[in-house]
Amino acid sequence: MEKPSLPKGTRDFGPQVMARRLYLISAIRSVFEKYGFQPIETPALEHLSTLLGKYGEEGDQLLFRILNSGNFLKDAPHELLDAADYRKLSGFISEKGLRYDLTVPFARYVVMNRNEVAMPFRRYQIQPVWRADRPQKGRYREFYQCDADVVGTDSLLCEAEIVMMINEVFSKLGIEQYSIKINHRNLLNRLALETGAGNRETDLFVALDKLDKIGRNGVLKELAARGFAPGTGNRLFGFIDASSQPDGLQQLQKLFPDCRGIDELNRILELLNLAGELTEKVQFDLSLARGLTYYTGCIFEVKIYNVAVGSVCGGGRYDNLTQAFGSKEKLSGVGISFGIDRLYDALEELRLFPEAARTTARVLVCHFDEATFKHGLKLVCDLRRQGVASELYPEITRLKKQLDYANKKTIPFVAVLGPEEISRNVVTLKNMATGVQEQIAITELAEKLKW
Amino acid sequence: MEKPSLPKGTRDFGPQVMARRLYLISAIRSVFEKYGFQPIETPALEHLSTLLGKYGEEGDQLLFRILNSGNFLKDAPHELLDAADYRKLSGFISEKGLRYDLTVPFARYVVMNRNEVAMPFRRYQIQPVWRADRPQKGRYREFYQCDADVVGTDSLLCEAEIVMMINEVFSKLGIEQYSIKINHRNLLNRLALETGAGNRETDLFVALDKLDKIGRNGVLKELAARGFAPGTGNRLFGFIDASSQPDGLQQLQKLFPDCRGIDELNRILELLNLAGELTEKVQFDLSLARGLTYYTGCIFEVKIYNVAVGSVCGGGRYDNLTQAFGSKEKLSGVGISFGIDRLYDALEELRLFPEAARTTARVLVCHFDEATFKHGLKLVCDLRRQGVASELYPEITRLKKQLDYANKKTIPFVAVLGPEEISRNVVTLKNMATGVQEQIAITELAEKLKW
Repeated sequence: MEKPSLPKGTRDFGPQVMARRLYLISAIRSVFEKYGFQPIETPALEHLSTLLGKYGEEGDQLLFRILNSGNFLKDAPHELLDAADYRKLSGFISEKGLRYDLTVPFARYVVMNRNEVAMPFRRYQIQPVWRADRPQKGRYREFYQCDADVVGTDSLLCEAEIVMMINEVFSKLGIEQYSIKINHRNLLNRLALETGAGNRETDLFVALDKLDKIGRNGVLKELAARGFAPGTGNRLFGFIDASSQPDGLQQLQKLFPDCRGIDELNRILELLNLAGELTEKVQFDLSLARGLTYYTGCIFEVKIYNVAVGSVCGGGRYDNLTQAFGSKEKLSGVGISFGIDRLYDALEELRLFPEAARTTARVLVCHFDEATFKHGLKLVCDLRRQGVASELYPEITRLKKQLDYANKKTIPFVAVLGPEEISRNVVTLKNMATGVQEQIAITELAEKLKW
Repeated sequence: MEKPSLPKGTRDFGPQVMARRLYLISAIRSVFEKYGFQPIETPALEHLSTLLGKYGEEGDQLLFRILNSGNFLKDAPHELLDAADYRKLSGFISEKGLRYDLTVPFARYVVMNRNEVAMPFRRYQIQPVWRADRPQKGRYREFYQCDADVVGTDSLLCEAEIVMMINEVFSKLGIEQYSIKINHRNLLNRLALETGAGNRETDLFVALDKLDKIGRNGVLKELAARGFAPGTGNRLFGFIDASSQPDGLQQLQKLFPDCRGIDELNRILELLNLAGELTEKVQFDLSLARGLTYYTGCIFEVKIYNVAVGSVCGGGRYDNLTQAFGSKEKLSGVGISFGIDRLYDALEELRLFPEAARTTARVLVCHFDEATFKHGLKLVCDLRRQGVASELYPEITRLKKQLDYANKKTIPFVAVLGPEEISRNVVTLKNMATGVQEQIAITELAEKLKW
């Protein structure tokens, strides 16, 4: 028998990683709920008709398709089999696919539950998604998404609250050095127009989006290579320089009067100011240009300083969430997505996972023979009743083996229960990290072991 | 565009259901962790070589198979396409399948991480699984399993601790009326032998297992129909009657001396007694015969009284968890699985979900105009800083619309903030369930709204 292995691009999460992931997810979940967002879950399987055409041609090809059950060839035309035409054939042998993101299932959910859902609808969703992408460092075929969206209102309070939620999540996680960059799709449109590239927005911003990576000269070269008129790049950076002043948004407002994007950004900043959350972390950045084909209003991106993990959170406002499902109602929404894997890496790098983000018991009770084992059983039961996660080594064996187990499992304390301890109603408590041992009265043990 | 729909046998979980599911799962998770069980997660996708042959022929057919990416026909022999031989073809066009249970991925995980894992290994796992079964009431194609297992020890403490965990989970959930039935595979073997059906155990116990449904006469008829010698059934029920006495296990021990199964059951009861957990809920039941092809030691089954949901929890001891993956090491284990869907139904039926098992905000702050909206923003920020989940209605609109929203979302309180309230530093707080209104000082609001 071959050694078993994992499908490429997938991962097992062992106990330590899981403990930390659960800590991270629970922190985000609690903030979402504090802001009135409610959880939903959708199935891993969706009809291909729900998924296809929603993610562009490349996305369609990255969908994991499920082979129909039973005789999957029964409806397959013979000529397609003869021709080995896999593209056409797949439509006859596969009707379902795996969830590719959380947005399309969310839109489907809203359409199917339109009457039950209270609008504006604040939902969050934390589930894995699957993409048949080429796996590489940091890119997996199965990974969690963690999204919060409000749909059914244009109110810019939602944008302000998203910034507030990001601040609160990061504060909870102990992340202090980060920036929340914001920009606006409408302002970007205006920028393209004023730069003289109004008919080639996408090209312009795809080049601009590389600023972080290739620098200003790189962007200028790229614009030239893409055939933009000479001077376009300089005009672009002229505006960006103006916007980079401390009062950049006001500067820009003078240059671009009557710009909806600027008005909306000002309103968001006003609300944040009222909420006491307008810190230097919130940064207007005219060069931020994400999700061009999708977002229609304010856009966000969050980066943590001093870690090499890229953007950990992003989002923005979009129009017509449910349009793709034939809904006539125009539902505008705004959402944010936390990158769980990247946040995890950042917390590790910054050593911000607390000692308590673990799922081991606090203590292993050790014993020497049947009599001390039985006393140990009573002791772990008592500890558990007092809320202390505890284990009793299940076999009667030498102490060394029991201590090795505690060490390997990184259980922080070991309580040794020998005949002498029992006669004196104490345990010998060993701190496994420091090696320090002390005798503790059984009645005081639970208190001592609490966090 | 067609109306979107869900693949059959799958479900969306909306906010209210999700809140309750999270409550239920969190209760179970906390008990598992208190007993030193640690979480793992495995990918939804596994190689078919990992899955096939582990669940019997029927199980193999119920696996959801993933179509290979790209040109999935490239390795498919032309003669299979010509013959439209779907059975053979599937091996060439599909290499991965969806997780069918949590036990096989767990065994794979243990084999792949043998050196990292501290033995005895206590793991729990709460994830969805997929089966291409015919959907029917209470049977889904996607459903959660919730398993806890200890592998790598024969110690019967593990069995006793499983009973203790069940008691603690049920106590946490407020379930009072239930039974934990236990039996032993070795005792069942002995029963078959003494009944004169030693060579036809499986047939005997498949018939016996229907006792609950078809009654004693039904079982007798079935045994006759299956060609058992006359008298087999009567001998069987003779033993069962003996075992049903209050001292049934002792009675049986007299009839079957030197029975390992009885010795082990006695040891488990002894340990439970020491732990103070041997209540009338723990019931030895000689007619319990679950998982015949799988379990080798003690077996468990938990039923809640007065609800029509069947068994909500079951498990037992098995040998050789990792044998199927070619491991030479014999890892005995014992595990328990909670049926989340059935437990959910039981808690609903018994009305045991607490009011707090919800994810709505505690309060919606309502306003009348831009000025009161801005005061409202400060108020929700204050409330959130004090830990109270709160919402501000995001649009400036008439009060009725805001109240309707709170009603539809079942937000328990509404805080109305008008000019008069603001001038007096109060809010008008309305309890949405009772309709009672009162004026509350802003400084006292958070305290009033805490659970």
